[in-house]
This record gives sequence, structure tokens and C-alpha cells, in this order.
Amino acid sequence: MHLAIVGQVVGLVTALIGVAMLAPLGLAMALGERDVTALAISAGVAFVAGSAAALVLRRRGTDLGRREGLVAVFLSWVAAGLFGALPYWLYARLEGFPALDSVTACLFETMSGLTTTGATVIGDVESLPHGLLLWRSMTQWLGGMGIVVLFVAVLPMFGLAAQALFRAEVPGTTKDKITPHLRDTARLLWSVYVGITVLGILALALAGMGWFDAVCHGLATMATGGFSTRNTGIMAFDSPAIELVLVFFMAVAGINFALHVRLLNTRQPRVYWRDLETRLYLLILAGFSLAIALTTWIGGAVDGPLPALRHGVFQVVSLMTTTGFNSADFGGWLEAAPLAPVLLIVTMMIGGSSGSTAGSMKVSRLIVLIKHGWRELALAGHPRAVIPVRVGGQLIPEPIVSLTAAFFFLYMAHFVVGTALVALTGEDLVTSISAVAATLGNVGPGFGAVGPTCNYAGLSPFVLWVLTYLMLVGRLELITALVLLSKTFWRR
Amino acid sequence: MHLAIVGQVVGLVTALIGVAMLAPLGLAMALGERDVTALAISAGVAFVAGSAAALVLRRRGTDLGRREGLVAVFLSWVAAGLFGALPYWLYARLEGFPALDSVTACLFETMSGLTTTGATVIGDVESLPHGLLLWRSMTQWLGGMGIVVLFVAVLPMFGLAAQALFRAEVPGTTKDKITPHLRDTARLLWSVYVGITVLGILALALAGMGWFDAVCHGLATMATGGFSTRNTGIMAFDSPAIELVLVFFMAVAGINFALHVRLLNTRQPRVYWRDLETRLYLLILAGFSLAIALTTWIGGAVDGPLPALRHGVFQVVSLMTTTGFNSADFGGWLEAAPLAPVLLIVTMMIGGSSGSTAGSMKVSRLIVLIKHGWRELALAGHPRAVIPVRVGGQLIPEPIVSLTAAFFFLYMAHFVVGTALVALTGEDLVTSISAVAATLGNVGPGFGAVGPTCNYAGLSPFVLWVLTYLMLVGRLELITALVLLSKTFWRR
Repeated sequence: MHLAIVGQVVGLVTALIGVAMLAPLGLAMALGERDVTALAISAGVAFVAGSAAALVLRRRGTDLGRREGLVAVFLSWVAAGLFGALPYWLYARLEGFPALDSVTACLFETMSGLTTTGATVIGDVESLPHGLLLWRSMTQWLGGMGIVVLFVAVLPMFGLAAQALFRAEVPGTTKDKITPHLRDTARLLWSVYVGITVLGILALALAGMGWFDAVCHGLATMATGGFSTRNTGIMAFDSPAIELVLVFFMAVAGINFALHVRLLNTRQPRVYWRDLETRLYLLILAGFSLAIALTTWIGGAVDGPLPALRHGVFQVVSLMTTTGFNSADFGGWLEAAPLAPVLLIVTMMIGGSSGSTAGSMKVSRLIVLIKHGWRELALAGHPRAVIPVRVGGQLIPEPIVSLTAAFFFLYMAHFVVGTALVALTGEDLVTSISAVAATLGNVGPGFGAVGPTCNYAGLSPFVLWVLTYLMLVGRLELITALVLLSKTFWRR
Repeated sequence: MHLAIVGQVVGLVTALIGVAMLAPLGLAMALGERDVTALAISAGVAFVAGSAAALVLRRRGTDLGRREGLVAVFLSWVAAGLFGALPYWLYARLEGFPALDSVTACLFETMSGLTTTGATVIGDVESLPHGLLLWRSMTQWLGGMGIVVLFVAVLPMFGLAAQALFRAEVPGTTKDKITPHLRDTARLLWSVYVGITVLGILALALAGMGWFDAVCHGLATMATGGFSTRNTGIMAFDSPAIELVLVFFMAVAGINFALHVRLLNTRQPRVYWRDLETRLYLLILAGFSLAIALTTWIGGAVDGPLPALRHGVFQVVSLMTTTGFNSADFGGWLEAAPLAPVLLIVTMMIGGSSGSTAGSMKVSRLIVLIKHGWRELALAGHPRAVIPVRVGGQLIPEPIVSLTAAFFFLYMAHFVVGTALVALTGEDLVTSISAVAATLGNVGPGFGAVGPTCNYAGLSPFVLWVLTYLMLVGRLELITALVLLSKTFWRR
């Protein structure tokens, strides 16, 4: 293990966080608001500390292998969480802001942003200055496509290293290289990401949002984050036009970005429908939306079929892409339409597509798990047969099948142990289950005490730490984080 | 597929069900109660129909292969469910008994018995005549060790066939043959089963139960069934001595019966502790009992530390062995100690040991899943390494690992789809989740509307059918039932 090069990567990512803070700092200075000092100090500290570490640990001829890549990505996320939390913490210290008065709360809010979860401990977000609100949205956007991938795209320093980092951070099972050179792939992905984000911001502004809200919500949407600038989230706008724009861009953000690149190259929209994962993703979105519209309408949870369809579609797209915006208080559907929370928790746990900014398990994994289950059934009748697992005509190598199955177990194990730890502090069953599903899947809101009209401020510090851990390992898809616990990993 | 021989097995099992009904019939006649006619007709119909089918379909030189074994076991269970329900249905028709007035209710009650679930639709069981109560307890006992295995042990007809049937029905991952001849194994298992059941009945009588209650509860305990002869279950006795006896025999029933045989041979009690699965099983029992005692005591759900320990131990043993007896209204712990329901649902889903009469996923599968997850983590750092999965020093073949992983996914898929189907009818989240966990795992009581002081009578017929299906596929450990849906299975 070459720790020097690992430290260098972490240092550079930290410096990048400092550079990124210049945007909210500029806004704060332009508006002359009270968060200037906090942002200025944070940007300076992150940049200086990061650059210093990178300079001191300049690599000496060794290259970044797979194992170093895994460690570097994990530690980069931890460092980004720590330095990203600095503006909140300093602001609360300097200007007084009770919701962010503890290190626990600041780290939770930052990790929730970076991991694109969107769970918040701030009840009154509207009282935050604009600079911090922008930084809050930016953490999501930086984490969405991956802070380390961004760094691979931007900094021309690592050659072979790029692949190790890329693989460790990009979500999902398919990690197509799109172009022969990985740096080009990273750049292409980030260009598309930037491009669609700009389109989304323009569309939100056209739909009637003010510019500041449009920028913040645009960043949160493409990252499938879910932080809002309003206390009541998207309900505050009560605008079908804005919801329609959000539904479209959330759905786009939940699709494999390699397909967006392919659309640019071929200009044929059917690239999406031809892809099995995207097809199933769209079918689940449509089917679950309809089911929730029907059950909430018939159960009387929503007033009439059209509002039922409007909020059904919005919530399914929002939760399956793991964004977490809410157009209605879907927490109130628990009693009148109990099928709705079941389906919404299931969509939360499935998540979007591989190679998208969405979190959770991913549709592609669900496909592999179904095909694997089916294959094993076939083998029960013909134990000596050799039956490969195929997805969309393509053969899935057995190691990937095995890894996916293990991922599923580890995911459920985290889900169960997490739920027990939250319930331990006295939170009720629905709150415990949904808080864990919403953080492990990087969704944001759940049901009960962490429902869409509530926030995570009421939970104990112990629970906030548990959920912060779940957000991080959920975003890194368990393996990148948990592998560091394996004794074998550290052996040469 | 040689369907004639399959039909012959099903016919013989049906005839056996008819023979078994002679016991409750004798009791009913001795007591001169109103269930004589219903039991006499049912016994006659089952015996005649079964024997006729077996005679007509006498095998003609073909032997029973693995595939025929799977089909025969599945259809035998369906036939046992149908003919076993006849006494209930006839009694309700002839003498009037509203709770069993529908085919749905009768089938649910019978399948709940045979699968050792113990979920009931009868609120006032004490108003049932003794013959039917005995039959109700006997269905559990017959299903506990396996009706088809019993048949292999009793009838000297099938040679090679025995293995196919045995493998398809005995629960768990380890299906040790104990003795070189499978019929001897089946006989040995059934002898031990009968022996411990007799001991259990004697112990219950000594602890203060009347003889009839002792017999019924003894049968239900060794089968990990959970049907009681009292409306309020074990709470009706309010006796620490009876609870202690039940805890001991439930715990014994949840251990691999091969180990009980080994104890008889070696007379060394350490055979249990040497077995990794039993060790983990006992540790989970102890750890979860303590955790639930603590959380219910501190949360104030139970009055004082000693009652907390008493009911904590009883409920954990009862639910982990998937028996489902209740010494307290643990449904009332939901609010005061939310950790308790989480842990109890987890114990329900883990279940007892392979080769025991307990249901659910089994501790051995949990071990394989944990080791598999750990192996895949190790591989993430060293992708070219070859790392086998070992349990207790023994190498687990990859096909078993793969099958176990698929089993876990299929189990969770049934859990999720089942929960959605129950919630669809308007049942609340806690009721839906726990009803599915309790039936799929063959436990019995859950929380909410299906809590320990309630019963399943309030659920819609649609839900009862869903749960009946879950009980059956849960008992047959998914594969034996689901394999029949695979197109490959039916291909030569």
C-alpha cells in the first residue's frame, strides 16, 4: 500500500473543495451577507491544507493501483465531508445558528449533501444566508457525478491511476469506458452533467422559479440530491409547471449517463428504450406512479384523480431517482393508503440506473438478482446443467453475479442493523425503517418523524452518526467502504 | 416426467392423512362430541381417495428421479392441505361454526398447521370440540418433520426414490444422511422426534398442564407450530414452570435433529457447542433475549426486570424457533420499546437450524451469506485471488453458495411483494410487514392486527390466500415450490 500517493489524491480533492467554495463566497460577498467570513476561512483552510498535503506527499515514481484507488476514494469522501462542513460550523459559531451548532449536525448536513441524500437537520432553511444555501446545493452537485471523477477529469496528473479511482467511485455495475481514454470518459461525463444541469436551471427559471432558486434546485435535481431552499420543499411553489420540469430532469438524472452521451453521438432517442435497464427503469416509474395514484385516490389520501396522478408521478420519480423532493406531504398517505408507503420504500431501495447520479441498489442489480434467482431455480431441476446468467443477451460473468448477490445481502444487513440501532433510541418502527432506507439509499425524506414535512433534527446525535455512516457507505455502494475492513485487503 | 409415480406418492400421502385422522376420531367417539361425523367422513374420504389413486397409478418399472421428487413433494403438501381441511369444513357445515365457514378459512387453518406456522383464523378455539383441537395440533406435528419423510420412513416401497423425496422436503442447507441408508435416516429422525415429543408432553403435564392440553401443546412445540388450545395461548396458564418447559423444548426443536441423534450415539452434550450453526443459534437466542429484556424493562413495556427477562427469553425462543407461542402480549411492546419488534421480526426471519422443525431462512444460511459477503469484500481488493467460502473449517461448494444467495433474494422478493399485496387491501404497514414475515417464516403471530392477542380472521379472503401461499412456499423453502414455474424444469 503506497500511502503517500493516497494522501496526495486526498489532498488534491480537499484543495478542490476549497476552490469550489469560491462560488458561494463570491455570492456572499456580492450580497454582503453574514456568511462571508465563514466561507472565506473555510475556502482558505481547505485549499491550503489540501495543497500542502499534496505537495508534501508528491508521488515518487509509484503508480496508483486498484487497492490504493479504493482507499483514496474513501478517504477523499471523508476529507470532503470534514472540510465541506467547515462553513456551516464556522457560521454557527460566528453568527449563531442553533440547528448547526454541533459538529454532528454539520457533518450530517455535509455528508447528506455530498452523498446526494438530501436529508436535513435544518428546519428553517430559509433563514440561512444565500452563500451557504448555494454551498449546500453545490455539495450535492459535486458528489452527484463523483468528486474524485471530477478531479480525474480536471487535473492532468494521473495516468493509470485514473481507472482505479473511476471504478471505485462510479455507481452501479456497468462502468463502460465510452471512450478509449478514461480521462476523456470522465470529461465527457462531466460535460454532459454540466450541460444538462444548465438546461435544467434554464427550464426551472422559465417555469417560474427565481434565478437563485432555479440554480439551487437545478444543482440538486441533476445530482438527485433533494435539498431545497424552501422550508416546505417543492410544495412551497405549488406549481405544476415546476413539478413537470423537475420530474423530467430527475428522470433524466436517474438514467445511465453513458446513454446520454450515446444520444449525443447517434441522435436517436431509441438508445434509451433499447437498453434493458433503462426500459425496466421507465416501466417501474410508470407502473408504480399509476399504482400510487390509484391507491391514494381510492383511499382518499389525495383529493381527486388528477392530484393523485400529479403527486403519484412526482413522488415515484423523486424517490426512485433517490432525489427526495416532495410535491405533497406523502407522509400523510400512511393511514389512508398503506400500499403507497410500501411501494415508495421499495422504489427507494431499488433506486435509479447504474452510471447515473441516483443512489440505492440500482435497477441493473435488480435485473442480475432476478436472473440469478431464476437460473438457480432452473438448476434445482437439472443440477448438472451449466446455465449462464444473461442480461439483454449479454453474458454476466460469474464473479459479477456473485458480487451482486453479496452486495444485496450486505445492503439488507446494513438495513436491518441500521433499523435496530435507530429503534434502540426509541424511534418508532416506521420512522426507524424509513430513516435507514432513506439514508442508506441516499434518498432524503422517509416516513414518520423523518417524513417530508419534518427533518432529522429531532433524532439523537447517536442516530445522526449512524445515518451519516449509512449515507457514506450507501453512496460508495458498500464495497469501496467495507473492503477496508477486510484483513485480506491489507495483505500484499 | 413420470406423472404416474408422482400421483402414486401423492395418493399414499393422502391415505396416510386419512389414517392419521383415526386418532382424533377415536377421541371424539370416546368423548361423544359433535365432531365424530366430520372426522369419520374425512378419514374415510382421504383414505379411500388416496389408496384408490395409489392403486390405479401403481408404478410400472420407472423410478422416482430428482424432478419427480420435487413435484411429488409439492403436490403431496397441496393434497394434505386439501384433505386435512375436510374435517373443519364438514364440521362447520354440519354443526355450524362461523369461523370455519369458508373454504378459504379452512384451507388457511390447515396449511397453517401443516407448515407449522400456527396462525389461526379461529378467535374462540376453546369452543372447538376436542377431536378437532387434537387434529389441529396433529397437522403441525405431521408437517414438522415432514409428511413425505414420514411416509419414506413408514412405507417400505421406494428405494432410490427416498432420497429425491427426502432432499426436497427436509429444511435447510445440510441434509446429512446420518446413516448410509436413507430410510434408516428417516426412521431415526422420526424416532427421535417421537421420543422428544413424548418427553415434552410428560414434562408439560408435570409442570401442571392437563393431559389434553399437554398432548396438544407438546405436539405443537416439537413441530415449532404454535397452535394452542386456549384463546389467549400460553398466557392462559400464566405459569413460569410451563413456560420454562416450553422454552427448553422449543429450543431443542430448533436444533438440527442430526445432532440429537449424535448425542444419543456419543452421549457427549458438547456435540451441540462444537457445531457452528448451533453455537450461533444459541448465542443469538441468548443475546436477543437479553437485549429484549433490557429494552422492554427500560422502556417500561414490562413491569420490572424479572418479568422482562421471563418474557424476553420466551418470546425470542418462541419466534426464532418460529413456534409462535406467546407468554405476553408482545404486540403491546411496539410503542414503549420499538427495538423489541425490530429484533423479534429479525429473529422471525432468521429462524432455527437446518434439519430442525423450525421454519424461515435458517441460521446456516445466514452463516453462508455472511461468509460469502466477506469473501466478496476480500476479492474486491484482490480480484485475481481464489478464495473459497468456508464454514467451520468445511469448504462450501460454490453451487451451494450461489443457491443460498439466490434463496435470500427470492425470500426477500416474496417478503416485499407479499407485504405490498397485504397493504393493497388497506392493512397498515406494521400489520402487513409482520403478517408476511410471520407466515413466510412459518411463525404465526405478528404485530398490529395480527398481533399475539388477535388472529387472522379479520383479514380479507384475498389476503388469506396470499398468506396461505406464503406459508406453503416458506415451508418448502421456496425452491421446491418455485422450481415448478421454471420452463427448464419441465424440459428433458
